[in-house]
Amino acid sequence: MAHTHPHPENHLTSSAMLQDIVIGLSDGLTVPFALAAGLSGAVSSSNLVITAGLAEIVAGSIAMGLGGYLAGRTEVEHYDAELAREYREVQEVPHIERAEVDELLAEIGLSAATRKLAVAELTADPDQWVRFMMKYELGLEQPDPKQAPKSAATISIAYALGGLIPLSAYFLTATPTQGLLWSAVITLVCLLLFGYLKSRLTGQPPLWGALKMAGTGALAAAAAFWVAKLIAS
Amino acid sequence: MAHTHPHPENHLTSSAMLQDIVIGLSDGLTVPFALAAGLSGAVSSSNLVITAGLAEIVAGSIAMGLGGYLAGRTEVEHYDAELAREYREVQEVPHIERAEVDELLAEIGLSAATRKLAVAELTADPDQWVRFMMKYELGLEQPDPKQAPKSAATISIAYALGGLIPLSAYFLTATPTQGLLWSAVITLVCLLLFGYLKSRLTGQPPLWGALKMAGTGALAAAAAFWVAKLIAS
Repeated sequence: MAHTHPHPENHLTSSAMLQDIVIGLSDGLTVPFALAAGLSGAVSSSNLVITAGLAEIVAGSIAMGLGGYLAGRTEVEHYDAELAREYREVQEVPHIERAEVDELLAEIGLSAATRKLAVAELTADPDQWVRFMMKYELGLEQPDPKQAPKSAATISIAYALGGLIPLSAYFLTATPTQGLLWSAVITLVCLLLFGYLKSRLTGQPPLWGALKMAGTGALAAAAAFWVAKLIAS
Repeated sequence: MAHTHPHPENHLTSSAMLQDIVIGLSDGLTVPFALAAGLSGAVSSSNLVITAGLAEIVAGSIAMGLGGYLAGRTEVEHYDAELAREYREVQEVPHIERAEVDELLAEIGLSAATRKLAVAELTADPDQWVRFMMKYELGLEQPDPKQAPKSAATISIAYALGGLIPLSAYFLTATPTQGLLWSAVITLVCLLLFGYLKSRLTGQPPLWGALKMAGTGALAAAAAFWVAKLIAS
């Protein structure tokens, strides 16, 4: 029973890859699907829909992957900078940092007498003190520097694979209208399944999760179709 | 000096809108730019580039906005479910929850004697006890339920506005090749400026931030151009 709540840090590490796959796949299934659907209402060549769809998949997976990689690197740099600052402050202005520890302990409901003991013990070791400030004052967990490139690659690949699913229908049909029909069927089934599984994994109501995911895709596709039709007509 | 570290919750609330604008604008400037650039190498009509670009902007802003809104709602539901569970556990298995408090206090470096006092004081009030478990055990901050719709709207609008910047060049030029030239100039200048400002705001090196943002856009556009050209030839 004491282990029904895994520590958030462990939890994040173990499911980071799954989270990245979810991010990449859900966007990959949605945006290229909606773009291809939109163009289907405006052009008469499946080849054009495929060209635009593949260009979008490449652009999106680079933007998401590289963007995610750079954001991860920035997070590591930010953590290191804050860590260095806390070590400096603990050395240079220990009375202020001690008052901050005292304030955090008062917030959780400790009496002045207990706080006096606790502050003395907690601040006896600088490493322990800084670790406490990082986690409970700043709410920062140490990011894994290897996570950023792994995350970037996973999101990129998941986005591209997700995007190829709606696009595959246009390869296998003769006209954009037929392509759209099959693309919508395949993609909505995938979004329903995927939303269902994702919600099961994160402990959310799975049917509602399935509907949310498919609804977002359908709405984006309908809006793109309507806008493209309006311009083309 | 005690206020140089704002509490992360306050910090997040005040800059949440700015963060959302950054997310929307950076993606909006990048993906529609790259898609339009890709198509410019494959089609001869600016109208087609504009149609695909607008369809992408609509699809992307709905996917990001609605996706962000639903993710925000899920976060609120998740917090409420965990809160209810902690209240239940504090009532039903107080000895286990008390042992968890003791373990967390041992982790931050308190002695057995101080922990005994602290556990007694901290668990005297159930609200205070649960608040402690939410923050220190689960690492969860209470999300603002009004944040989700506001965030969704901000990201959507920022994405659409960002996307219209690279696309505007195709409205004002005669051929896709001319459009691409001007689109690249306008967008890269915007990405450099925007990366610079974003890095200034978040305390990162601004020149490096400008280069990262423009580099991602340029790479995504070059890859999309190359892929579209390959298919069309």
